Amino acid sequence: MSVDEQRRPARVKRLPREVRERQILDAAVRVFSEHGYHNASMDEISEVAGVSKPMIYAYLGHKEDLFAACIRREATLLVEAIAGGVRAEAPPDMQLWHGLRAFFRFVGEQRESWRVLHRQATSQGGPFSEELMGMRGRAINLVDALLVRSATSHGVPTKSTEAMAVALVGAGESLADWWLDHPDVPEKTVASWLMNLVWMGLGDLVDGTSWVPTPE
Amino acid sequence: MSVDEQRRPARVKRLPREVRERQILDAAVRVFSEHGYHNASMDEISEVAGVSKPMIYAYLGHKEDLFAACIRREATLLVEAIAGGVRAEAPPDMQLWHGLRAFFRFVGEQRESWRVLHRQATSQGGPFSEELMGMRGRAINLVDALLVRSATSHGVPTKSTEAMAVALVGAGESLADWWLDHPDVPEKTVASWLMNLVWMGLGDLVDGTSWVPTPE
Repeated sequence: MSVDEQRRPARVKRLPREVRERQILDAAVRVFSEHGYHNASMDEISEVAGVSKPMIYAYLGHKEDLFAACIRREATLLVEAIAGGVRAEAPPDMQLWHGLRAFFRFVGEQRESWRVLHRQATSQGGPFSEELMGMRGRAINLVDALLVRSATSHGVPTKSTEAMAVALVGAGESLADWWLDHPDVPEKTVASWLMNLVWMGLGDLVDGTSWVPTPE
Repeated sequence: MSVDEQRRPARVKRLPREVRERQILDAAVRVFSEHGYHNASMDEISEVAGVSKPMIYAYLGHKEDLFAACIRREATLLVEAIAGGVRAEAPPDMQLWHGLRAFFRFVGEQRESWRVLHRQATSQGGPFSEELMGMRGRAINLVDALLVRSATSHGVPTKSTEAMAVALVGAGESLADWWLDHPDVPEKTVASWLMNLVWMGLGDLVDGTSWVPTPE
Protein backbone atom coordinates (compact mmCIF):
# COMPACT_ATOMS: atom_id res chain seq x y z
CA MET A 1 0.00 0.00 0.00
CA SER A 2 0.69 3.68 0.25
CA VAL A 3 2.85 4.32 -2.80
CA ASP A 4 1.57 7.78 -3.55
CA GLU A 5 2.00 7.94 -7.29
CA GLN A 6 0.79 11.50 -7.53
CA ARG A 7 3.66 12.72 -5.41
CA ARG A 8 6.24 11.06 -7.64
CA PRO A 9 7.65 13.70 -9.96
CA ALA A 10 7.76 12.85 -13.64
CA ARG A 11 11.37 13.82 -14.20
CA VAL A 12 13.14 12.87 -11.03
CA LYS A 13 16.68 13.67 -12.20
CA ARG A 14 16.14 17.36 -12.80
CA LEU A 15 14.87 18.52 -9.43
CA PRO A 16 17.16 20.82 -7.45
CA ARG A 17 18.37 19.48 -4.13
CA GLU A 18 16.20 21.74 -1.96
CA VAL A 19 13.05 20.58 -3.72
CA ARG A 20 14.09 16.96 -3.31
CA GLU A 21 14.85 17.51 0.38
CA ARG A 22 11.46 19.10 0.88
CA GLN A 23 9.78 16.09 -0.76
CA ILE A 24 11.70 13.74 1.51
CA LEU A 25 10.87 15.70 4.65
CA ASP A 26 7.18 16.00 3.69
CA ALA A 27 7.03 12.24 3.20
CA ALA A 28 8.96 11.54 6.39
CA VAL A 29 6.69 13.74 8.52
CA ARG A 30 3.68 11.93 7.10
CA VAL A 31 5.10 8.44 7.68
CA PHE A 32 6.54 9.21 11.14
CA SER A 33 3.25 10.80 12.15
CA GLU A 34 1.28 7.76 11.05
CA HIS A 35 3.47 4.93 12.33
CA GLY A 36 5.68 6.47 15.00
CA TYR A 37 9.45 6.57 14.87
CA HIS A 38 10.14 2.91 15.55
CA ASN A 39 7.59 1.47 13.14
CA ALA A 40 8.23 3.93 10.31
CA SER A 41 10.21 2.33 7.50
CA MET A 42 12.65 4.03 5.17
CA ASP A 43 11.08 1.96 2.38
CA GLU A 44 7.73 3.65 2.89
CA ILE A 45 9.30 7.11 3.19
CA SER A 46 11.15 6.43 -0.05
CA GLU A 47 7.91 5.33 -1.72
CA VAL A 48 5.85 8.27 -0.47
CA ALA A 49 8.59 10.76 -1.40
CA GLY A 50 9.27 9.16 -4.78
CA VAL A 51 12.96 9.38 -3.96
CA SER A 52 15.28 6.39 -3.80
CA LYS A 53 16.64 5.28 -0.44
CA PRO A 54 20.30 5.87 -1.44
CA MET A 55 19.39 9.44 -2.37
CA ILE A 56 17.61 9.95 0.98
CA TYR A 57 20.71 8.69 2.79
CA ALA A 58 22.94 10.94 0.71
CA TYR A 59 20.80 14.04 1.29
CA LEU A 60 19.51 13.68 4.82
CA GLY A 61 21.21 10.66 6.37
CA HIS A 62 19.71 7.64 8.05
CA LYS A 63 16.42 7.33 9.92
CA GLU A 64 17.62 9.03 13.09
CA ASP A 65 19.04 12.02 11.19
CA LEU A 66 15.92 12.21 9.08
CA PHE A 67 13.69 12.26 12.15
CA ALA A 68 15.84 14.97 13.74
CA ALA A 69 15.63 16.99 10.50
CA CYS A 70 11.82 16.65 10.56
CA ILE A 71 11.64 17.91 14.14
CA ARG A 72 13.98 20.80 13.33
CA ARG A 73 11.98 21.88 10.30
CA GLU A 74 8.54 21.54 11.91
CA ALA A 75 9.69 23.22 15.12
CA THR A 76 11.07 26.14 13.13
CA LEU A 77 7.80 26.45 11.20
CA LEU A 78 5.81 26.39 14.44
CA VAL A 79 7.90 29.00 16.22
CA GLU A 80 7.87 31.20 13.11
CA ALA A 81 4.09 30.86 12.91
CA ILE A 82 3.70 31.96 16.53
CA ALA A 83 6.20 34.80 16.23
CA GLY A 84 4.54 35.90 12.99
CA GLY A 85 1.14 35.88 14.68
CA VAL A 86 2.16 38.23 17.49
CA ARG A 87 1.65 41.92 16.63
CA ALA A 88 4.11 43.94 18.63
CA GLU A 89 2.05 47.13 18.50
CA ALA A 90 -1.06 45.49 20.02
CA PRO A 91 -1.87 45.60 23.75
CA PRO A 92 -0.49 42.61 25.74
CA ASP A 93 -3.74 40.65 25.85
CA MET A 94 -4.19 40.92 22.09
CA GLN A 95 -0.52 39.95 21.54
CA LEU A 96 -1.05 36.81 23.59
CA TRP A 97 -4.37 36.15 21.86
CA HIS A 98 -2.79 36.36 18.42
CA GLY A 99 0.09 34.14 19.55
CA LEU A 100 -2.33 31.51 20.89
CA ARG A 101 -4.44 31.70 17.73
CA ALA A 102 -1.32 31.21 15.59
CA PHE A 103 -0.27 28.24 17.73
CA PHE A 104 -3.62 26.47 17.56
CA ARG A 105 -3.99 27.32 13.88
CA PHE A 106 -0.65 25.61 13.21
CA VAL A 107 -1.64 22.56 15.24
CA GLY A 108 -5.03 22.40 13.51
CA GLU A 109 -3.67 22.78 10.02
CA GLN A 110 -0.52 20.71 10.54
CA ARG A 111 -1.80 17.89 12.69
CA GLU A 112 0.87 15.55 11.32
CA SER A 113 3.60 18.03 12.22
CA TRP A 114 2.29 18.41 15.74
CA ARG A 115 1.97 14.66 16.16
CA VAL A 116 5.58 14.20 15.08
CA LEU A 117 6.80 17.12 17.16
CA HIS A 118 4.98 16.47 20.35
CA ARG A 119 3.81 12.90 20.58
CA GLN A 120 6.42 11.03 18.58
CA ALA A 121 9.48 13.06 19.47
CA THR A 122 8.54 13.22 23.14
CA SER A 123 8.01 9.50 23.28
CA GLN A 124 11.40 8.82 21.66
CA GLY A 125 13.50 10.90 24.00
CA GLY A 126 17.23 10.54 23.57
CA PRO A 127 18.85 12.28 20.62
CA PHE A 128 15.67 14.14 19.69
CA SER A 129 15.10 15.77 23.05
CA GLU A 130 17.68 18.41 22.21
CA GLU A 131 15.84 19.56 19.10
CA LEU A 132 12.58 19.59 21.02
CA MET A 133 14.00 21.39 24.03
CA GLY A 134 15.39 23.99 21.64
CA MET A 135 11.92 24.54 20.21
CA ARG A 136 10.30 24.72 23.64
CA GLY A 137 12.98 27.14 24.72
CA ARG A 138 12.21 29.45 21.82
CA ALA A 139 8.47 29.28 22.50
CA ILE A 140 9.07 29.98 26.20
CA ASN A 141 11.29 32.95 25.32
CA LEU A 142 8.55 34.41 23.14
CA VAL A 143 6.01 34.20 25.96
CA ASP A 144 8.50 35.35 28.56
CA ALA A 145 9.40 38.40 26.48
CA LEU A 146 5.71 39.29 26.24
CA LEU A 147 5.24 38.90 30.00
CA VAL A 148 8.36 40.92 30.79
CA ARG A 149 7.25 43.72 28.44
CA SER A 150 3.83 43.82 30.08
CA ALA A 151 4.68 43.07 33.66
CA THR A 152 8.09 44.34 34.74
CA SER A 153 6.86 47.90 35.10
CA HIS A 154 4.69 46.55 37.90
CA GLY A 155 7.58 44.93 39.68
CA VAL A 156 6.95 41.27 38.82
CA PRO A 157 10.37 39.62 39.09
CA THR A 158 11.66 38.02 35.90
CA LYS A 159 12.21 34.55 37.35
CA SER A 160 8.46 34.33 37.93
CA THR A 161 7.76 35.43 34.35
CA GLU A 162 10.07 32.67 33.05
CA ALA A 163 8.28 30.13 35.24
CA MET A 164 4.87 31.38 34.13
CA ALA A 165 5.98 31.22 30.50
CA VAL A 166 7.06 27.60 31.09
CA ALA A 167 3.67 26.86 32.65
CA LEU A 168 1.81 28.56 29.82
CA VAL A 169 3.71 26.63 27.15
CA GLY A 170 2.99 23.39 29.03
CA ALA A 171 -0.68 24.33 29.19
CA GLY A 172 -0.71 24.97 25.44
CA GLU A 173 1.00 21.67 24.65
CA SER A 174 -1.33 19.72 26.88
CA LEU A 175 -4.42 21.40 25.44
CA ALA A 176 -3.22 20.95 21.86
CA ASP A 177 -2.81 17.26 22.53
CA TRP A 178 -6.32 17.10 23.99
CA TRP A 179 -7.60 18.96 20.94
CA LEU A 180 -6.21 16.26 18.59
CA ASP A 181 -8.69 13.92 20.27
CA HIS A 182 -11.53 16.51 20.17
CA PRO A 183 -11.30 17.82 16.58
CA ASP A 184 -14.93 19.00 16.68
CA VAL A 185 -13.96 21.97 18.88
CA PRO A 186 -13.23 25.02 16.66
CA GLU A 187 -9.72 26.46 16.79
CA LYS A 188 -10.95 29.83 18.03
CA THR A 189 -12.86 28.17 20.87
CA VAL A 190 -9.92 26.14 22.15
CA ALA A 191 -7.70 29.23 21.93
CA SER A 192 -10.25 31.28 23.87
CA TRP A 193 -10.41 28.69 26.65
CA LEU A 194 -6.65 28.89 27.15
CA MET A 195 -6.75 32.68 26.86
CA ASN A 196 -9.45 32.86 29.51
CA LEU A 197 -7.59 30.50 31.80
CA VAL A 198 -4.28 32.34 31.66
CA TRP A 199 -5.44 35.92 31.10
CA MET A 200 -8.61 36.19 33.14
CA GLY A 201 -7.78 33.37 35.52
CA LEU A 202 -10.18 30.95 37.12
CA GLY A 203 -11.05 33.50 39.80
CA ASP A 204 -12.68 35.78 37.26
CA LEU A 205 -14.24 32.83 35.44
CA VAL A 206 -15.80 31.57 38.64
CA ASP A 207 -17.26 35.05 39.07
CA GLY A 208 -18.67 34.79 35.56
CA THR A 209 -16.29 37.32 33.96
CA SER A 210 -14.63 36.20 30.74
CA TRP A 211 -12.23 37.67 28.21
CA VAL A 212 -13.26 38.60 24.68
CA PRO A 213 -10.96 39.98 21.98
CA THR A 214 -11.27 43.71 21.34
CA PRO A 215 -12.73 44.37 17.87
CA GLU A 216 -10.03 45.32 15.34
CA MET B 1 29.57 0.39 42.08
CA SER B 2 26.42 1.28 43.93
CA VAL B 3 25.84 -1.79 46.03
CA ASP B 4 24.02 -0.13 48.86
CA GLU B 5 24.94 -2.40 51.72
CA GLN B 6 22.85 -0.48 54.22
CA ARG B 7 19.67 -1.34 52.38
CA ARG B 8 20.42 -5.06 52.37
CA PRO B 9 18.40 -6.67 55.13
CA ALA B 10 20.22 -8.98 57.49
CA ARG B 11 17.72 -11.85 57.39
CA VAL B 12 16.50 -11.93 53.80
CA LYS B 13 14.47 -15.12 54.07
CA ARG B 14 12.04 -13.94 56.73
CA LEU B 15 10.56 -10.84 55.12
CA PRO B 16 6.91 -10.97 54.05
CA ARG B 17 6.23 -10.57 50.38
CA GLU B 18 4.80 -7.04 50.58
CA VAL B 19 7.89 -5.77 52.37
CA ARG B 20 10.11 -7.44 49.77
CA GLU B 21 8.07 -5.94 46.94
CA ARG B 22 8.35 -2.49 48.48
CA GLN B 23 12.13 -2.87 48.72
CA ILE B 24 12.28 -3.90 45.09
CA LEU B 25 10.09 -1.00 43.94
CA ASP B 26 12.03 1.53 46.05
CA ALA B 27 15.25 0.31 44.49
CA ALA B 28 13.79 0.24 40.99
CA VAL B 29 12.49 3.83 41.24
CA ARG B 30 15.91 4.96 42.36
CA VAL B 31 17.78 3.14 39.60
CA PHE B 32 15.30 4.04 36.82
CA SER B 33 15.37 7.66 37.94
CA GLU B 34 19.14 7.76 37.85
CA HIS B 35 19.86 5.89 34.62
CA GLY B 36 16.63 5.96 32.63
CA TYR B 37 14.69 2.91 31.56
CA HIS B 38 17.04 1.67 28.84
CA ASN B 39 20.26 2.03 30.81
CA ALA B 40 18.92 0.72 34.10
CA SER B 41 20.12 -2.83 34.80
CA MET B 42 18.30 -5.52 36.71
CA ASP B 43 21.67 -6.34 38.29
CA GLU B 44 21.83 -2.91 39.89
CA ILE B 45 18.20 -3.02 41.00
CA SER B 46 18.88 -6.40 42.57
CA GLU B 47 21.97 -5.01 44.33
CA VAL B 48 20.24 -1.87 45.61
CA ALA B 49 17.20 -3.83 46.77
CA GLY B 50 19.23 -6.61 48.34
CA VAL B 51 16.93 -9.06 46.60
CA SER B 52 18.09 -11.69 44.12
CA LYS B 53 17.16 -11.32 40.47
CA PRO B 54 15.17 -14.60 40.37
CA MET B 55 13.10 -13.34 43.30
CA ILE B 56 12.48 -10.01 41.54
CA TYR B 57 11.33 -11.87 38.44
CA ALA B 58 9.08 -14.10 40.54
CA TYR B 59 7.52 -11.20 42.45
CA LEU B 60 7.28 -8.39 39.92
CA GLY B 61 8.30 -9.80 36.55
CA HIS B 62 10.90 -8.57 34.11
CA LYS B 63 12.20 -5.06 33.55
CA GLU B 64 9.20 -3.84 31.60
CA ASP B 65 6.70 -5.11 34.20
CA LEU B 66 8.84 -3.69 36.97
CA PHE B 67 8.92 -0.27 35.33
CA ALA B 68 5.14 -0.36 34.83
CA ALA B 69 4.72 -1.32 38.50
CA CYS B 70 6.90 1.66 39.51
CA ILE B 71 4.80 4.05 37.45
CA ARG B 72 1.58 2.61 38.84
CA ARG B 73 2.73 2.91 42.44
CA GLU B 74 4.22 6.39 42.12
CA ALA B 75 1.25 7.67 40.13
CA THR B 76 -1.13 6.36 42.78
CA LEU B 77 0.90 8.04 45.52
CA LEU B 78 0.92 11.32 43.60
CA VAL B 79 -2.81 11.35 42.92
CA GLU B 80 -3.53 10.36 46.54
CA ALA B 81 -1.25 13.17 47.74
CA ILE B 82 -3.12 15.72 45.64
CA ALA B 83 -6.56 14.39 46.55
CA GLY B 84 -5.53 14.32 50.20
CA GLY B 85 -4.32 17.92 49.99
CA VAL B 86 -7.63 19.30 48.73
CA ARG B 87 -10.02 20.32 51.52
CA ALA B 88 -13.54 20.00 50.22
CA GLU B 89 -14.98 22.50 52.69
CA ALA B 90 -12.60 25.30 51.67
CA PRO B 91 -13.50 27.97 49.09
CA PRO B 92 -12.50 27.06 45.50
CA ASP B 93 -9.31 29.14 45.43
CA MET B 94 -8.06 27.57 48.66
CA GLN B 95 -8.97 24.10 47.38
CA LEU B 96 -6.89 24.68 44.27
CA TRP B 97 -4.10 26.20 46.35
CA HIS B 98 -3.94 23.16 48.64
CA GLY B 99 -4.02 20.86 45.62
CA LEU B 100 -1.13 22.71 43.98
CA ARG B 101 0.82 22.76 47.24
CA ALA B 102 0.33 19.01 47.62
CA PHE B 103 1.45 18.44 44.03
CA PHE B 104 4.62 20.51 44.33
CA ARG B 105 5.35 19.08 47.76
CA PHE B 106 5.22 15.58 46.28
CA VAL B 107 7.49 16.58 43.40
CA GLY B 108 9.92 18.32 45.76
CA GLU B 109 10.06 15.46 48.25
CA GLN B 110 9.91 12.65 45.70
CA ARG B 111 12.10 14.00 42.95
CA GLU B 112 13.05 10.48 41.90
CA SER B 113 9.41 9.50 41.61
CA TRP B 114 8.61 12.52 39.51
CA ARG B 115 11.62 11.91 37.28
CA VAL B 116 10.51 8.32 36.69
CA LEU B 117 6.88 9.29 36.23
CA HIS B 118 7.27 12.25 34.00
CA ARG B 119 10.63 12.27 32.28
CA GLN B 120 11.45 8.58 32.00
CA ALA B 121 7.99 7.19 31.38
CA THR B 122 7.11 9.94 28.91
CA SER B 123 10.29 9.36 26.98
CA GLN B 124 9.63 5.62 26.79
CA GLY B 125 6.13 5.77 25.37
CA GLY B 126 4.69 2.44 24.33
CA PRO B 127 3.46 0.11 27.07
CA PHE B 128 3.92 2.72 29.79
CA SER B 129 1.78 5.41 28.22
CA GLU B 130 -1.35 3.68 29.42
CA GLU B 131 -0.29 3.84 33.08
CA LEU B 132 0.70 7.46 32.66
CA MET B 133 -2.43 8.45 30.80
CA GLY B 134 -4.42 6.85 33.59
CA MET B 135 -2.64 9.02 36.13
CA ARG B 136 -3.07 12.18 34.08
CA GLY B 137 -6.72 11.32 33.63
CA ARG B 138 -7.21 11.05 37.39
CA ALA B 139 -5.41 14.35 37.98
CA ILE B 140 -7.48 16.03 35.27
CA ASN B 141 -10.68 14.67 36.80
CA LEU B 142 -9.73 16.11 40.19
CA VAL B 143 -9.19 19.57 38.71
CA ASP B 144 -12.24 19.30 36.47
CA ALA B 145 -14.45 18.37 39.42
CA LEU B 146 -13.19 21.43 41.29
CA LEU B 147 -13.88 23.69 38.31
CA VAL B 148 -17.32 22.21 37.74
CA ARG B 149 -18.21 22.64 41.42
CA SER B 150 -17.11 26.29 41.33
CA ALA B 151 -18.14 27.31 37.86
CA THR B 152 -21.24 25.54 36.58
CA SER B 153 -23.58 27.71 38.60
CA HIS B 154 -22.31 30.57 36.40
CA GLY B 155 -23.06 28.74 33.19
CA VAL B 156 -19.55 27.75 32.11
CA PRO B 157 -20.05 24.67 29.91
CA THR B 158 -18.37 21.50 31.14
CA LYS B 159 -16.36 20.82 27.97
CA SER B 160 -14.48 24.04 28.66
CA THR B 161 -13.82 22.99 32.25
CA GLU B 162 -12.38 19.67 31.04
CA ALA B 163 -10.17 21.54 28.56
CA MET B 164 -9.06 24.00 31.23
CA ALA B 165 -8.30 21.14 33.61
CA VAL B 166 -6.15 19.55 30.87
CA ALA B 167 -4.36 22.86 30.36
CA LEU B 168 -3.83 23.32 34.09
CA VAL B 169 -2.39 19.83 34.51
CA GLY B 170 -0.06 20.46 31.55
CA ALA B 171 1.02 23.75 33.13
CA GLY B 172 1.75 21.96 36.41
CA GLU B 173 3.76 19.20 34.73
CA SER B 174 5.76 21.69 32.72
CA LEU B 175 6.48 23.86 35.74
CA ALA B 176 7.40 20.86 37.90
CA ASP B 177 9.91 19.83 35.26
CA TRP B 178 11.34 23.36 35.21
CA TRP B 179 11.52 23.29 38.99
CA LEU B 180 13.72 20.16 38.94
CA ASP B 181 16.29 22.34 37.18
CA HIS B 182 15.71 25.28 39.59
CA PRO B 183 15.73 23.59 43.00
CA ASP B 184 16.62 26.87 44.73
CA VAL B 185 13.04 28.13 44.27
CA PRO B 186 10.96 27.27 47.39
CA GLU B 187 7.99 24.95 46.91
CA LYS B 188 5.54 27.58 48.13
CA THR B 189 6.90 30.11 45.65
CA VAL B 190 6.60 27.86 42.62
CA ALA B 191 3.08 26.88 43.71
CA SER B 192 2.10 30.54 44.13
CA TRP B 193 3.35 31.38 40.63
CA LEU B 194 1.10 28.74 39.12
CA MET B 195 -1.78 29.75 41.40
CA ASN B 196 -1.42 33.36 40.32
CA LEU B 197 -1.23 32.42 36.66
CA VAL B 198 -4.34 30.25 36.65
CA TRP B 199 -6.41 31.91 39.38
CA MET B 200 -5.69 35.60 38.97
CA GLY B 201 -4.65 35.39 35.34
CA LEU B 202 -2.01 37.46 33.58
CA GLY B 203 -4.48 40.29 33.12
CA ASP B 204 -4.62 40.93 36.85
CA LEU B 205 -0.89 40.33 37.23
CA VAL B 206 -0.15 42.93 34.56
CA ASP B 207 -2.33 45.31 36.54
CA GLY B 208 -0.26 44.50 39.61
CA THR B 209 -2.96 42.47 41.41
CA SER B 210 -1.85 39.13 42.77
CA TRP B 211 -3.39 36.29 44.75
CA VAL B 212 -2.45 35.49 48.33
CA PRO B 213 -3.84 32.65 50.42
CA THR B 214 -6.42 33.64 53.02
CA PRO B 215 -5.09 33.12 56.56
CA GLU B 216 -6.39 29.93 58.13
